[in-house]
Amino acid sequence: MRLNTPVPIQWVAGFIGAELTGNAALQATGINEIHKVIAGDITFVDFEKYYNASIQSAASIIIINKRLDCPDGKALLVVEDPFSAYVKLVKHFRPFEPASAMIADSAVIGKGTHIQPGVFIGHHAEIGENCLIHPHVTIYDHTVIGNNVIIHAGAVLGADAFYFKKRADREVMYDKLESCGRVVIGNDVEIGANCTIDKGVSGDTIVGEGTKLDNMIHIGHGAVIGKNCLFAAQVGIGGKTIIEDNVILWGQVGISKDLTIGANAIVLAQTGVPSSLKGGKTYFGYPAEEAGNKRRELVWIKRIPEIWEKVMKPA
Amino acid sequence: MRLNTPVPIQWVAGFIGAELTGNAALQATGINEIHKVIAGDITFVDFEKYYNASIQSAASIIIINKRLDCPDGKALLVVEDPFSAYVKLVKHFRPFEPASAMIADSAVIGKGTHIQPGVFIGHHAEIGENCLIHPHVTIYDHTVIGNNVIIHAGAVLGADAFYFKKRADREVMYDKLESCGRVVIGNDVEIGANCTIDKGVSGDTIVGEGTKLDNMIHIGHGAVIGKNCLFAAQVGIGGKTIIEDNVILWGQVGISKDLTIGANAIVLAQTGVPSSLKGGKTYFGYPAEEAGNKRRELVWIKRIPEIWEKVMKPA
Amino acid sequence: MRLNTPVPIQWVAGFIGAELTGNAALQATGINEIHKVIAGDITFVDFEKYYNASIQSAASIIIINKRLDCPDGKALLVVEDPFSAYVKLVKHFRPFEPASAMIADSAVIGKGTHIQPGVFIGHHAEIGENCLIHPHVTIYDHTVIGNNVIIHAGAVLGADAFYFKKRADREVMYDKLESCGRVVIGNDVEIGANCTIDKGVSGDTIVGEGTKLDNMIHIGHGAVIGKNCLFAAQVGIGGKTIIEDNVILWGQVGISKDLTIGANAIVLAQTGVPSSLKGGKTYFGYPAEEAGNKRRELVWIKRIPEIWEKVMKPA
Repeated sequence: MRLNTPVPIQWVAGFIGAELTGNAALQATGINEIHKVIAGDITFVDFEKYYNASIQSAASIIIINKRLDCPDGKALLVVEDPFSAYVKLVKHFRPFEPASAMIADSAVIGKGTHIQPGVFIGHHAEIGENCLIHPHVTIYDHTVIGNNVIIHAGAVLGADAFYFKKRADREVMYDKLESCGRVVIGNDVEIGANCTIDKGVSGDTIVGEGTKLDNMIHIGHGAVIGKNCLFAAQVGIGGKTIIEDNVILWGQVGISKDLTIGANAIVLAQTGVPSSLKGGKTYFGYPAEEAGNKRRELVWIKRIPEIWEKVMKPA
Repeated sequence: MRLNTPVPIQWVAGFIGAELTGNAALQATGINEIHKVIAGDITFVDFEKYYNASIQSAASIIIINKRLDCPDGKALLVVEDPFSAYVKLVKHFRPFEPASAMIADSAVIGKGTHIQPGVFIGHHAEIGENCLIHPHVTIYDHTVIGNNVIIHAGAVLGADAFYFKKRADREVMYDKLESCGRVVIGNDVEIGANCTIDKGVSGDTIVGEGTKLDNMIHIGHGAVIGKNCLFAAQVGIGGKTIIEDNVILWGQVGISKDLTIGANAIVLAQTGVPSSLKGGKTYFGYPAEEAGNKRRELVWIKRIPEIWEKVMKPA
Repeated sequence: MRLNTPVPIQWVAGFIGAELTGNAALQATGINEIHKVIAGDITFVDFEKYYNASIQSAASIIIINKRLDCPDGKALLVVEDPFSAYVKLVKHFRPFEPASAMIADSAVIGKGTHIQPGVFIGHHAEIGENCLIHPHVTIYDHTVIGNNVIIHAGAVLGADAFYFKKRADREVMYDKLESCGRVVIGNDVEIGANCTIDKGVSGDTIVGEGTKLDNMIHIGHGAVIGKNCLFAAQVGIGGKTIIEDNVILWGQVGISKDLTIGANAIVLAQTGVPSSLKGGKTYFGYPAEEAGNKRRELVWIKRIPEIWEKVMKPA
């Protein structure tokens, strides 16, 4: 998330009760989880094994739970609970704004776009030109939609990332990471009925130009879907997964989080994908394999009785 | 789709800029994709391998991209891009009509039917008697619903067919086939929360009398579901598939497009069905097999280590 | 379901046209399907093989289609069609109440709770404090929601149980069991966009404190979900299944009805669960097995060609 105006690090330190080491003159220009950081960003780290990666990342300001050496030009904000400090910042800079109408005054709607009755459009949402939004669609705050986009009834764009920190010692064990990212839909996209596309934790969930989604597809937080993809009904895409251009996913395919599916891949119906796939090939099965290999495997399984007959039966 | 009044073919030829050959006195009485044509219909063909089937089909008027001999009594409309010409006709005769209210004035609602708050009912929709429609249901234009039907919250009836022509040479690669079909729901049907039933491309998507759908079921364009079927939650049915009477599908079953599932078939949970199934039997697995065979296969797989022990270990 | 005031059994007998045997002085204090009965309840039985269990259950009043000996203190109500008699009682004591507004006057909403526009809240629903209900959520009558609950757009709480009696001799074959149970959501639960949680047939469908549901999850009637569970998107849980505390279900997992999943179990993506699972272990595959076993099985399958080579090829 970009901040509207630069924020002095001294103010940030005071707001979250942190000890500041390093460059005290820094101004924060963004807040981001570690996967999305750029220069000027505040990020956080609370696991020792990620300390180094976080400090060496592009982020300028790291909220951390240990006093460590700070690289030149950066700053560390030392607190006991970096997660909670980060969430406090997100809530301050991206507070929940209650809606008082189905379409927010601050929403921008392009010319030629038609909104059917019963559509919710949140604060600061932007919808391009010549779109058609069907009834009962929900567009959360800050969502960005391109031109010539069709969204069918009941689709939900911009619900919160499903992202929690486990607090094994607490009665309420899962602590919510407030998400401040957005959903960004490219031009000429079609989104089927009752699809759900979650906002990014701090960056954008993106559906590329010309991609077509059938009904009841789930796209997790921060996923990046390429151009001209075709997803059949009931597909699910995990958080932060990258689907490159021209990928075709058939019905009920599930793709885990944090993967990359290469351009022009085809994944057949009901396939489960636990690891990244190279582009240009066809896959199926669980776990996904190249379709030719998987088909041969099905034939081999059918031959087990024949082997058994030869080997195990007394001569 | 039936046309409200017969349309002279000469007008059609002029509207789409086609060269007319054959019977110039014809009147078009319908527009249909090739799978649904009857006499009087306009259809289109743009692949050479389907030329003959299209010209020999029941359709009277074929939009085509090659000058061919025209059978007696029929007419060919020769254009460079039959797909676009067909879409232009669909848009003309079935234009999108923006809604100005949650329930269209032109909708017909039978006596004894109760509509809960927040339901959208589009133009020309027809709902029978003694139905109960729960909140946030979306009923697109032209949908037809029988008597004693219950539709749970968030269900969407009549969203567009997921049907695109690939234009490999264009930046926006998938070209939308505008659908002009309908959803037709029989008497005594129950439709679960957040189900989605798409309209046919040019014909009807049908759910037969007495069929009960659990929540979050997707039924693709032009599918025909028989009477007294029972589908558990999260089932997906591909476009134009026929499910005969008394079929039971358990949870998360996926059935591909263009198939036929015979009467009284039972398909167990999570089964994936890539090809047609005979009626009266029980199936499971991916790809679906008769349940007895599939269960034996699972037992055979468990015996591989025993075979290995005997065969591969040194004596 | 509890009755608001005790109802004399003589009135019940008259209302459903039953022959009363046994304790004619009883007062009914509840109506329940056999799985949920406590003392004072009316229940029903129409299969001979369940006669004994029903009469010996905690229920005080049994609607039955055979004259049998009645245990001391209980009563039998003999009718030809116990199912229809039970449904008649449910409809009488829990009639459908049409809504006249998006939020019922009788709904109770706690302080600090924010309801976004376009939310439906039915009669007698109770929502705790500091909740956030996003647009287009549907909360059916009698639903109970705790404190600090977040419900994302399009979720449906309290749709009818998917429960039918098969009447093979009728044209409309599936006869609806009217459900009179509730959905009860604990404190600190988060429910994702377009989830559906059905009400119990006569008891409660429960989601325990601190449990977090991602998008498009289906929870069947009467299921009981423990505390601090984490379910990823598109999971489906069958009716009356018990999920104990701290269970993690990954995306697209399907769990059949009437099962128990032990505490701290982890079920990997797309797994199908046809029978109960012990707690504390990790499972995957269809049918679900311990993950270690299943992974070894996948390796064994890959070795079939090697066995074939050794055994079947001529020396």
